[in-house]
Amino acid sequence: MLIQVVNPNATAAMTDVIAAAARAAAAPDVSVEAVTNAAAPVSIESAYDEALAVPGLLAAVREPADGYVVACFGDPGLDAAREVAAGPVVGIAEAAMRTATYLGRSFSVVTTLARTTGRTEELVDRYGVRPLCRSVRACEVPVLGLAGNPDAYRRVLAECRAAVECDGAECLVLGCAGMADLCAELAAELGVPVVDGVAAAVATVSGLVRLGLSTSRVGGYARPPAKPVTGPLASLWLG
Amino acid sequence: MLIQVVNPNATAAMTDVIAAAARAAAAPDVSVEAVTNAAAPVSIESAYDEALAVPGLLAAVREPADGYVVACFGDPGLDAAREVAAGPVVGIAEAAMRTATYLGRSFSVVTTLARTTGRTEELVDRYGVRPLCRSVRACEVPVLGLAGNPDAYRRVLAECRAAVECDGAECLVLGCAGMADLCAELAAELGVPVVDGVAAAVATVSGLVRLGLSTSRVGGYARPPAKPVTGPLASLWLG
Amino acid sequence: MLIQVVNPNATAAMTDVIAAAARAAAAPDVSVEAVTNAAAPVSIESAYDEALAVPGLLAAVREPADGYVVACFGDPGLDAAREVAAGPVVGIAEAAMRTATYLGRSFSVVTTLARTTGRTEELVDRYGVRPLCRSVRACEVPVLGLAGNPDAYRRVLAECRAAVECDGAECLVLGCAGMADLCAELAAELGVPVVDGVAAAVATVSGLVRLGLSTSRVGGYARPPAKPVTGPLASLWLG
Amino acid sequence: MLIQVVNPNATAAMTDVIAAAARAAAAPDVSVEAVTNAAAPVSIESAYDEALAVPGLLAAVREPADGYVVACFGDPGLDAAREVAAGPVVGIAEAAMRTATYLGRSFSVVTTLARTTGRTEELVDRYGVRPLCRSVRACEVPVLGLAGNPDAYRRVLAECRAAVECDGAECLVLGCAGMADLCAELAAELGVPVVDGVAAAVATVSGLVRLGLSTSRVGGYARPPAKPVTGPLASLWLG
Amino acid sequence: MLIQVVNPNATAAMTDVIAAAARAAAAPDVSVEAVTNAAAPVSIESAYDEALAVPGLLAAVREPADGYVVACFGDPGLDAAREVAAGPVVGIAEAAMRTATYLGRSFSVVTTLARTTGRTEELVDRYGVRPLCRSVRACEVPVLGLAGNPDAYRRVLAECRAAVECDGAECLVLGCAGMADLCAELAAELGVPVVDGVAAAVATVSGLVRLGLSTSRVGGYARPPAKPVTGPLASLWLG
Amino acid sequence: MLIQVVNPNATAAMTDVIAAAARAAAAPDVSVEAVTNAAAPVSIESAYDEALAVPGLLAAVREPADGYVVACFGDPGLDAAREVAAGPVVGIAEAAMRTATYLGRSFSVVTTLARTTGRTEELVDRYGVRPLCRSVRACEVPVLGLAGNPDAYRRVLAECRAAVECDGAECLVLGCAGMADLCAELAAELGVPVVDGVAAAVATVSGLVRLGLSTSRVGGYARPPAKPVTGPLASLWLG
Repeated sequence: MLIQVVNPNATAAMTDVIAAAARAAAAPDVSVEAVTNAAAPVSIESAYDEALAVPGLLAAVREPADGYVVACFGDPGLDAAREVAAGPVVGIAEAAMRTATYLGRSFSVVTTLARTTGRTEELVDRYGVRPLCRSVRACEVPVLGLAGNPDAYRRVLAECRAAVECDGAECLVLGCAGMADLCAELAAELGVPVVDGVAAAVATVSGLVRLGLSTSRVGGYARPPAKPVTGPLASLWLG
Repeated sequence: MLIQVVNPNATAAMTDVIAAAARAAAAPDVSVEAVTNAAAPVSIESAYDEALAVPGLLAAVREPADGYVVACFGDPGLDAAREVAAGPVVGIAEAAMRTATYLGRSFSVVTTLARTTGRTEELVDRYGVRPLCRSVRACEVPVLGLAGNPDAYRRVLAECRAAVECDGAECLVLGCAGMADLCAELAAELGVPVVDGVAAAVATVSGLVRLGLSTSRVGGYARPPAKPVTGPLASLWLG
Repeated sequence: MLIQVVNPNATAAMTDVIAAAARAAAAPDVSVEAVTNAAAPVSIESAYDEALAVPGLLAAVREPADGYVVACFGDPGLDAAREVAAGPVVGIAEAAMRTATYLGRSFSVVTTLARTTGRTEELVDRYGVRPLCRSVRACEVPVLGLAGNPDAYRRVLAECRAAVECDGAECLVLGCAGMADLCAELAAELGVPVVDGVAAAVATVSGLVRLGLSTSRVGGYARPPAKPVTGPLASLWLG
Repeated sequence: MLIQVVNPNATAAMTDVIAAAARAAAAPDVSVEAVTNAAAPVSIESAYDEALAVPGLLAAVREPADGYVVACFGDPGLDAAREVAAGPVVGIAEAAMRTATYLGRSFSVVTTLARTTGRTEELVDRYGVRPLCRSVRACEVPVLGLAGNPDAYRRVLAECRAAVECDGAECLVLGCAGMADLCAELAAELGVPVVDGVAAAVATVSGLVRLGLSTSRVGGYARPPAKPVTGPLASLWLG
Repeated sequence: MLIQVVNPNATAAMTDVIAAAARAAAAPDVSVEAVTNAAAPVSIESAYDEALAVPGLLAAVREPADGYVVACFGDPGLDAAREVAAGPVVGIAEAAMRTATYLGRSFSVVTTLARTTGRTEELVDRYGVRPLCRSVRACEVPVLGLAGNPDAYRRVLAECRAAVECDGAECLVLGCAGMADLCAELAAELGVPVVDGVAAAVATVSGLVRLGLSTSRVGGYARPPAKPVTGPLASLWLG
Repeated sequence: MLIQVVNPNATAAMTDVIAAAARAAAAPDVSVEAVTNAAAPVSIESAYDEALAVPGLLAAVREPADGYVVACFGDPGLDAAREVAAGPVVGIAEAAMRTATYLGRSFSVVTTLARTTGRTEELVDRYGVRPLCRSVRACEVPVLGLAGNPDAYRRVLAECRAAVECDGAECLVLGCAGMADLCAELAAELGVPVVDGVAAAVATVSGLVRLGLSTSRVGGYARPPAKPVTGPLASLWLG
């Protein structure tokens, strides 16, 4: 079974972090291919970044695989990816939040910049987990400042601890694919489950593939109708 | 006051329909500039279509104006547009549904293809109008089949009538910018208010401009951080 | 186009504040007529005050105009006004809260007395904006203590600032028609959009009139059946 | 213990129906005083009717008693009544719907005119019973056409039956105080619990009195501040 | 009229507290029989405790009575009890929370151990009272530590006071049957209504009986189909 | 990795069906042990059945394993099982419904007896998937009538087809563990994804184990406090 994990941003070093977390979460018969978006901002920290990253992401998920993971916590382009990918597609935010529902009566999300918390709150509502969500906290470290940065770890840890001690979170969700390598250490230090979305999404989508389940082609995720497209993205079009 | 109305698809004939509706809704001191997306599918009927249309739409809303309208009923790219546009941005779905709340205790949406109703239902939830929404109906006429098509009119009318008579809708929302020129005739024939999103959005955004209100730059719609972007969309980046 | 703005309380000085805000929000072709309720308490700070003010308000909206604004933040008598007025009717709370949804991912309301916050919370739920509402704060200045009172301004400002800095509000809604004249100064000082409901409602209802939209007469807002009424309000009855 | 039951409309014959139902629901130590609103429309079938009835209703609940029932299914003036009455106040819609929650996993409301169903739907949301409500059905018999009308009974019965058989209602709520005398016969014929709001409200409010519970005077239902009131309702004012 | 009040735990001393509160809430023609669960943990402070207590509780409610109260704030076994009991069944959490809705615009729950607050939050959602609930606070006194413990009283009082002063609760709900005897003193000291679930449930269920209302046998609460059961609980089976 | 799958009812033949579905869903390194509840009704078709089955289920999940599945669509005893089991616990209803969210914009549940649909509706609300749920349909075949019954298959198929064609379901959820062996054939015939909860729960819980995630011991799922228990279940108690 081949799972393609797309890093929607253009930073290969972050793809490496994602790939390692994804492979650690894979069953013995699951191969993971991690892909860097060839046409994207170097990090995704706004709706604008998301919008620019999505066409490249959609090109990536049109490569053949058994299942796909969108490895950015805003779940950019998820619906569109489902329409065009060959197999099931799972976003790391939806997977992480739904995984958390099996582990405790409540959770908090700890993410990077405060400016992204509004998007996360919107996903909390969309994914139906509002009653369990105690808080969405930001550590104010930018996405590309996470890797190899002990101070970043300390700030993430501090927000996680505040979520447990002040907000009543029984488990934690990491709100950025770039935090995947912090997960084990945080869990050990905090004593509560900590969910990394990359690992959660790989586990989820490989489970779907194993069960023979893929995106419904009836209704909202049916293949898009073929049609001309103008401008620089024309080559992306199906046909 | 200058309001820029962006047709997110690439079909200039549809921009003409939109422009006429927009101008009819404008106060005497409001100018409307209607823009066709230079880099987009010829119509938007899927999440994939939306995703491909958004970068071109974002380029359009970076032109100077006092306010902006996104004239596609999926409200594609709305959050990103708010981050980068110079003035307030209003989508036609949000404007139409919120306008309907002032007119009756309930409404229904009549849209084009059934495959888009899932997206509309999602917007009904996101915009907080679920308790008023009686149904989302599709006439199964594609976007580009609406113009100058008497049969299309009859099918839209039939769904509108069913919404009023079977579903209990007290007013109607047209679920496609390409239906803007059907609005007056439908209202006359049905005897209930019929809301065209293009007109509703022009009225709404010009009201915001008149009041001196624009997108908050604190929090979720702050200007995106500057950063490199790879690939064919690089030139779109802020800088 | 003539918009009638009704001050539901009996204080003419407050009607003057409302009238000024309403006129400043009107397009060049819109006339505003501001009316003081002839049969009402001098201010509205309880459900009891609202109840006593509504019959006089309903008499006022039966005067001919193209559209109507109910200028009290509890939106008293709104449904009844829609049943009997000649044109569309908009309340300042609904207009302000819905206007705020176009400006940020969240808002807070700052109102007068804490005893009215429960009513505001109820309207937040009814108008479908719960996910965006960060807080409803009271400055504990009574309605008639707002005008020309620098201390009142400071207390309103303090609550607005706390809403932004502590509660995460990205924009603000003023929770009393009597605060309309504070709006510009607050916005300038706070650096976030501040929505005055009077202006928002004038913009909204004049937009409806411009679009030819009025209250649906099918269903819940149909004209009330004619019938006898006993007691001092008998003369108010239709027919 | 004295419970005052106010018929918010001006029709004494309907007060008699209400009084009989109220007395049948009272414990041996509970006296019921049924009052006809002295200043009201002869029936309440619109928001306008409700608005005109409320001042007279508020005058009535200012008479001394241990507890109060507002016997109209729109629960008109309920919040205001709580602010000024000497004891707890219960509306028949809230009491009926909450009572139904103890009896089955779902209920439907059968009411008089279709034009009032929008108000009932609003109360279903406000009272938190949306997940249990299968439908709100109208028999299209006006309020004053219910009494002593075998055809009215048949039409109410038909809607009740449709609610059980088509909509999956496990119990029924009668949506008008004027249906109180139909309750027992309907229950016998349908074989499911049928809740009359008058009886439910008497049981509820007398329970509150027995427990020594009354309206909180902290916050939203505190006594209204004293103030002048202009016009024909001036004599109603507290003070 | 005979109301059976079941203490779902095995502690007879706590049954005495419950019985006293229940009798004080009963009308003159209502007899209360309080029953200790013969097969249960000595207190209920976890889902595990609830699960073990339910079979014994179900045996108890199969004894003949006119109505039944389940006197544990988790409302354990409530749906099952409805299926098998001879008359209506009311839980103390549902009765307390719904009773609170008649008394103020908001309430808080003060319960025993923090570990049970998640269950209470779930019931707040299930019972449709989320918009009114300001907080669920725990005093961290175990169930069996409440009786005759002045320090327990002080801790409950402190949490109640914080709910009113910090969280904006207009009335209070006691979150444990073992707090029933603290209710009057707390109300006197705090000056807001305090609802004890035992009293509220007795008032509610005796009201249902008086109105001739019992559990619907159509749909979800129909009598369970007869069938064999293996193991130590076999004797509990209906037959 | 060892996953224990508990059939909460006492019918070993149904455990065989469950075991086969569970093993087919397991990764190569996952062993499945299927267990029949030693103290339970022969099928679970009511809240009463659930209540009697839970103590035996809790005894079963106290056996050592890496993860646990509760294989009855009412998810009986799930919270209690989480408190006492050694590893993560997943119910088949929660797993099936959440799995469906990855596959389409909507789903329907097809279950056995209509009397259980109320419980399913409650779980739809509790699990936050209400906006996606189009219907809960019953085939009116009892649990023990499913196995080896071609007519049962036809009835399940008919309800599934109606869900897709009439209710707009884009994928389907089977509402009983005893339907697990019908899943593949239904999917092939219907052309939409069909989710069996047993398979979905095995995939989900084995994913949790692989990620090193288990139930949080902070807050609501902490180990229950040790305490005496009276009656026939005393031996079940922890310690």
